This record gives sequence, C-alpha cells and structure tokens, in this order.
Amino acid sequence: MDEDKKEMDQNTIFIGKKNTMSYVLAVITQFNQNADMVTIKARGKTISKAVDVSEIVKNKFVNSLKVEKIIISTEEIITENNTPMKVSAIEIVLSK
Amino acid sequence: MDEDKKEMDQNTIFIGKKNTMSYVLAVITQFNQNADMVTIKARGKTISKAVDVSEIVKNKFVNSLKVEKIIISTEEIITENNTPMKVSAIEIVLSK
Repeated sequence: MDEDKKEMDQNTIFIGKKNTMSYVLAVITQFNQNADMVTIKARGKTISKAVDVSEIVKNKFVNSLKVEKIIISTEEIITENNTPMKVSAIEIVLSK
Repeated sequence: MDEDKKEMDQNTIFIGKKNTMSYVLAVITQFNQNADMVTIKARGKTISKAVDVSEIVKNKFVNSLKVEKIIISTEEIITENNTPMKVSAIEIVLSK
C-alpha cells in the first residue's frame, strides 16, 4: 500500500451502528493526532448520522474546522442473500 | 415577496415522510417545467432520503444533471413540547 493511500485510510471515519458521539470522538482524536483533514464516510440510513457528526464536531468542539468538500455517490453492495443492491453514499471532508 | 425569493422557493423540494419516488417525481417535474436548478432540502433522519432522491434523479432519469453544491448546517426547531432542539440539515442543489 503506498503512503498516500495509507494516510487517506487512517484519516477516514466510517459511520456505522455506534452512537453519534463515538464517531464525534473518533474525528476529534484524528485531528488531535495531527491530521489536517478527516473524511467521514457513510452509506444508506447512516448518512444522516454522518452529517450530525460533522456538524457536532464543527459547532461544539473545533470551531475553526471547514467543510472542505461533500461528495454524494451511489455504491453497489451485496446483501445477505447475495443479491446486489444500490445504496447512496456520502463523503464529508473536514479540514483544519 | 420579491421575484428572486419566489423563484427559489418554487424550485425547492422539501423532503418529508412520503416515499422516495414521490420526491424523485417532484424534482423531475421541476426540471420539466424549465427550472435550471432544483434545491433538495432535508432535516434530521430524512437527510439520507434527500441523498437517495438526488442520486436516483441523476442516475436513472436525467443523466446530464450536475450536483452544483451541497451545504450542511444546523437548524433549531421547536419540538411538540415547546423545547428547542438542534437538527442537522442538508441542501443539495442540482443543475441542468
């Protein structure tokens, strides 16, 4: 894995089933470990949570953060019964 | 209400409790009535649906559409028992 890719992965938070504040903490931790940018990624229903995380970090914890870019896309996932399904995805890039 | 404001409101689709395809249809209708831009707005849990609507319109119906900009923000709403609550919001601007 080359250095750029590695760095990108380390600074990416994937939103899942944990509560919102767990991800808020994860993002803040990345910035405290000297990341200049953190990417928040989510798919399907968790997209709303990704926006919550981004807004909470920005408004309550690190006011100087900027939303660098927001990308929405469609990804194909394989469901439990092996059928492909399309889901929306979001990527929110926060920068110091 | 001045003309600019009126035009903006007419080209805005607010995402609520209806099913996703109702909003897809609403966005397509706006573009067919000669709108150059349509804004999709949503708050809280419906944010995921807003992204779905935008992706479905773009990928399945009007391939030439562009995501002009995406803005995320925090809004304060008044709940049923009169207490203020903060919710995340999204605005997705699609253009022809």
